[in-house]
Order: sequence, then structure tokens, then C-alpha cells
Amino acid sequence: MAIDYKKELESAAKSMILVHEPDTLIKMIVRMLVQKVKTKHAAILLHQQDMNSYILTVSRGALGLKVPKGFARMDSDNALIRFFREHNDRKLFNNAPVVYQEAKKFLAKRRIEAKTKRLIKGLLYQMEIFDALICIPSYFRDDLLGILLLGRKNNGKKFGRDELDFFVALTSDVAMAIRNAQLFRELELELERNKRLFIHTTIALAAAIDAKDHYTHGHTARVTGLSLEIAHRLMQKKKDLVDDKKFLEYLHIAALLHDIGKIGIPEAILNKNSSLDEQELKRIREHPSIGVAILEPIKELEEAILGVKYHHEKYDGSGYPEGLKGKQIPLIAAIISVADTFDAMTTTRPYRQGLSKEKAIEEIKRTSGQQLDPEVVSAFVELYQEGKI
Amino acid sequence: MAIDYKKELESAAKSMILVHEPDTLIKMIVRMLVQKVKTKHAAILLHQQDMNSYILTVSRGALGLKVPKGFARMDSDNALIRFFREHNDRKLFNNAPVVYQEAKKFLAKRRIEAKTKRLIKGLLYQMEIFDALICIPSYFRDDLLGILLLGRKNNGKKFGRDELDFFVALTSDVAMAIRNAQLFRELELELERNKRLFIHTTIALAAAIDAKDHYTHGHTARVTGLSLEIAHRLMQKKKDLVDDKKFLEYLHIAALLHDIGKIGIPEAILNKNSSLDEQELKRIREHPSIGVAILEPIKELEEAILGVKYHHEKYDGSGYPEGLKGKQIPLIAAIISVADTFDAMTTTRPYRQGLSKEKAIEEIKRTSGQQLDPEVVSAFVELYQEGKI
Repeated sequence: MAIDYKKELESAAKSMILVHEPDTLIKMIVRMLVQKVKTKHAAILLHQQDMNSYILTVSRGALGLKVPKGFARMDSDNALIRFFREHNDRKLFNNAPVVYQEAKKFLAKRRIEAKTKRLIKGLLYQMEIFDALICIPSYFRDDLLGILLLGRKNNGKKFGRDELDFFVALTSDVAMAIRNAQLFRELELELERNKRLFIHTTIALAAAIDAKDHYTHGHTARVTGLSLEIAHRLMQKKKDLVDDKKFLEYLHIAALLHDIGKIGIPEAILNKNSSLDEQELKRIREHPSIGVAILEPIKELEEAILGVKYHHEKYDGSGYPEGLKGKQIPLIAAIISVADTFDAMTTTRPYRQGLSKEKAIEEIKRTSGQQLDPEVVSAFVELYQEGKI
Repeated sequence: MAIDYKKELESAAKSMILVHEPDTLIKMIVRMLVQKVKTKHAAILLHQQDMNSYILTVSRGALGLKVPKGFARMDSDNALIRFFREHNDRKLFNNAPVVYQEAKKFLAKRRIEAKTKRLIKGLLYQMEIFDALICIPSYFRDDLLGILLLGRKNNGKKFGRDELDFFVALTSDVAMAIRNAQLFRELELELERNKRLFIHTTIALAAAIDAKDHYTHGHTARVTGLSLEIAHRLMQKKKDLVDDKKFLEYLHIAALLHDIGKIGIPEAILNKNSSLDEQELKRIREHPSIGVAILEPIKELEEAILGVKYHHEKYDGSGYPEGLKGKQIPLIAAIISVADTFDAMTTTRPYRQGLSKEKAIEEIKRTSGQQLDPEVVSAFVELYQEGKI
């Protein structure tokens, strides 16, 4: 006997492999089951590894099913879970789906141990709560990954044996697709955790080094914030200039570490209470190169290091360490340079009062094309005019 | 007409979803095809995203197939690739598999544009090289993911239409499983890259801070190396003591950052050329707490921070900052403490000569149970006796 929805469901199940968001996937599956098999509803109980419990996802069919409160999560001592987890009991029905009517007859007909009887009664009670006619467990190796629950058919007919067999195969596909999505999600979460860890550690260490320079407290954090704002604006203005999520990551790191080389400058110079003499200025100007020396061994930071190395270059070639000119200066450095200049101008030092934002912007516009990259300045000025700085 | 290997291949294809190592997966598949379909050989040409080329994986069957040199990678201008990539040409055979004999007849019978003729000839030539009777392309959306090539059957019979249809479905499953594995692998590689980036950046920044203290050059790197050695040994000795890969990660970070708080101590004290007075010692002793203050905002480092905070506690309770005793001191800190003590003892300072390894070990054994955790010391001494320190 042919099942009319079989082909459709099979091919849908296959394309699920590449859906890697578990929640989306599960919702897709229950919705699809309700539509194609034409049941009143379908539900999936899915194992949560971290909690050792099972979470319910329900698709309401035409008539709907209200999940009783507190039933969205099931502990592993729930009869429904225990029944399919305890292997001896699984064998009661030859590993086949549990059909409500059959289980009820089984209970009436046979002599069964009191303990098993209680378990089956518990199972039937759970099926009643969910208004489920059949339950299909799915395993990966020996682990119960989940249980598919199907309600009555819309046309009132019973499920045939061929349909039950088909659901067993389908449930196993579905469970594998879900397990795959979960593994994928776990990996993604670990990656996110790791990226956060990296950025937060870099922020903490950069801030600690920043704190050595008493007069620039918070400088690194401010320059980082401004740099990222400028980059986002450049991305909006001119798509090919900054076209890459990677660029933002590199800029973030470069801005955080742009002054890292100051750790190699004596505190006496960094914290000097008056203007610096020629010799002291020379030492200070070594900080980009010291920064490069510190970071150079880190291959993955190659792009970010450009920002550290060249953030004191000037558009007209009068900067250091290499006297690069115009577009020779990497964009990542040109951005940090504008942010750095603005923050230095607006910060009060013991030997001079900081400028107001307005005055600093005037000064930045004035030096555009001389000290600073005009394209970056123009993005910066826009941000200022919109009140974003 | 039933195909005898169909069920086996279908269920094998399903379980592939959870094989996430692309190379292993592809080898599994070609081997399986040769065994179950009983062909002389099978091959898969698989798209490499980064290269825009296709890589060949071959399974030799009973009679074997020698891949001609230089054919392991195919550029996208290869006729075999172009034929299945250029949509109009795909339609020539109604998106069905290309059967060598049929394509040959097609070429003889019909009037075809010269360009198409050349392409089909090129395709046939490629199939001859691989001794392939049929080619089955597989797509994800509009992208050609790969091509399955099958050689002659061992029994010499032709492939039936039902078999060809089945291969089309199977190839699509296989391609999706491979794509899934590739995506998984990409994510894993990015995670590895990120972990490396984090550790290398932490090493670089820790070393830079280390360099502030002129007398302890390389101290951080040495303490980190020793700490990890000790932890590995403890893991071998007593499985429940250090039972977690995570522990090693935390220890690695903690050891790298154990002296990070020194960044808050004036250089004048760190680099003093003589013994320190009471006041100066008090400042130096603040470094674990300063380290904690720097790292505390990083939630993910909670476990590692324990190593930073308590690496100057002593087993008899006479240490700082909290005077913890015995097993109150977290293992992560007890390990760093032994490594730190050993490195301090064996390093020459301006005001005292460093001890020899032998003398330092004697001293460490002597203070075991007073200053240092006896369990950690015993692992350390073992390593020394084996010449590993």
C-alpha cells in the first residue's frame, strides 16, 4: 500500500541536514508532519543534554492542542521518558511505535509485573495529556534522542502498519538531523564563547596597560569605540572600501592594542608632568614599533598589526615610523589615527586644557588631507553632525 | 524491479549525517558504493570552495583504476565540470545522469551546435580517462557540489533505469552529507584558529608585561611550561584530581597571567637593585589582587582567576592574600605556586645568586607541606627525577 505523503516527507527530511538551527528545524518538522500526514497535531520531545530533561515542541493542527502548563519540560523520571529509556520495557512492544489502543489492550490482556504495569499506565496517562495516538522513539546508538507524538488523523482513520513503519524510519532521520543541528549549534556557541573570551581578555589587558599612562585613562576604550563607529559609517558610504566582517574584527583588535607598545616606555616619560624634550619624544615615538615587536609572533594578527604599526603616520607623509603617504597608509591605521587624534585633542593633560568637541572637529577638518585621510575625516564629521560623537 | 543494495545504501547514507570529517566520509562513501553496487570502481569529484576547483577521491574496486597524474584536482574549466555547471547543457539529458553510451549515441544522431558538441566530446573524453560508465551530478540549490562517477559493474551488466534514478537520489544525499561535514569542519577550523589567536595574544601580552620586570625575563613562559607539565603528571597519577581538558586550558591561561598584576606596581619597586623594605614588599604583595581586579570582568576566566589570586598562598596558611590553608588552596594555584617557587629559586637576581636545580629541588622537598602542596611537589619531583625539568 502506497502512502501518499511518503515521498514528500522523505525528501523534506533530507534537506533538513543543512538546517543547522535546532529550534527552526524542530518547528519545521512538526509543522510539516501536521500538514502532510494530516493529523490534528504533532509534537516532539527532545533531549536536552545539559539538563538531562526533555523539551516539548508542539505544532497545533486544525483543532489545536493546548500544552498544559509545566509540561513544556519533562524530567527523565517522567513515565513517557522512562518507558523508552528502560530497555526492557522498550522490548514489550518490539521496539515498534507505541499505539495508544494497543498498549491499552496489552495492559488488559496480560499478566504483567506490578512495576511494569505502573509504567505503562503512566505512559498512557501522558499520551492522554498530549492527546497522542502514537509515540515513536528515536535513538542514536543507545541514547533516546527524542520521541515523536502524533495526534488523531483529521479524517478519523487509524494509522496503518505501513505508516507506522514509515514513521519509525522518518523519526530516526529527523532525530539524526536534529542531533546534527545540535552539534553544530554547540560548536557555534563554543566559537562565540571563545571570541568573547579573546576580546574581553584583550580589553582587560589593554586597559591595564592603558592605566600605566595616568593621563590617558580610558583612552583605549574611547578610541576603539570611535574607530568602530567610523568603520561602520565607511561601510555604509562605500561598500567596496570596507567590505568585510573580518575587517571589523581586525580593526577592533588593532584599536584595542594600538598603544600596547607603551608598555616598553619608562613610566617616568609616560607620566611626565610637563612637555617632553627631544630625547623623550623619540622614546615615545617608538611605541608603534614596540607594539609590532610584541604582536609580530601572532600570525593571525597580521592585518591588525598594520593598525598598530601605522596609526601615527600622516596623510602628507610627515608621520612615523615610516613616513607613509596618502593611500599608502592602510585604512585600518587611517581610521585609528582620526579616532586617536580626536581623543587626544579632547583630553585634558596637566600641561594643557582639552579642546571642546566643536573645536576638535574644526581642527580635524582643518588637518584633513594633511595629517588625516580625508575620506575617514568625512565619515567622522558626518557622525559628529548626526550627534553620534 | 527491486534493487538489492538499495536499502543498505539508503540506511548507510542516513548515518553519514553524523560523520563530520569530510575526508573520512568521502572515503566511506566510495568504498561502500564499490562494495554494494559491485562496480569496478567509484569516484567522487568534490567542489573545493576556496579553490573553485574539484578534488577527486577514488575507490579502487577489484580491478583497480589508476588515476592519471595531475587529475587529482580539476579546474572549473574542465569539460566534466563545465558540462554540469552550465545549466543549458545539463538540460540536454533532462538533468538525468549521463550514461556514456547514451551520450555517444546522442552525439552521433543529432544536429548540435559546434560549441555543445565540443563540450560533450570533452565530457566523454574525461569519462574515458576515468573509465566511468555513468556520471551523476549533485547540486545544492544551484551550486554543483560534486559528481559521482561509476565504473562498469563486475558482472558486466548495464545499469538499469531504476538504478540510475536511485543513484540520483543517493548522490543528492551524499552531497548533502558531505556539504554538512564540510561546514562542520570549517567551523571547527575557525574555532581552532580562534583558540590559537587567544593563547598567542595572551602569551604576547603576558611576555610584554613580564619584560617590565627586568629580573624575571622569561619567567612567565617558564612557569607556564612547568605548570602544564605538573598538571599532565597529576592527571596520569590520579585521574580524578585533574580530570578535565578544561582544567588544562584554565591552568594555561592562569599561568600566563599569574603575574599580570605586576603592571600595577611601580617600575622603581619591580626593578630595585637591592632588598625591598616592608612598605615595598607590601606593594609587591598586592600583585595577585591587582591581577584579579584586571581579569574579574571576564566571566569566562572565573576558574583561571583562582590561579592568579591564590598563587602566593602557602600550604600552612602563612601566604597571601587570604592565608588559605592546605586543600583550601585551589589546585590550579597550588600548581602555579610550585612552578613559580622553583623558577624564582633558580633565577639569579642582582642581590643573590640563583640556586642550582638540585639545590632548588632539595629546598622544594623541604618546604613540602609547609609552603607547598605535597601532592603537587611529589609530581614535580618525579618529573625532575625523570630528567623532564
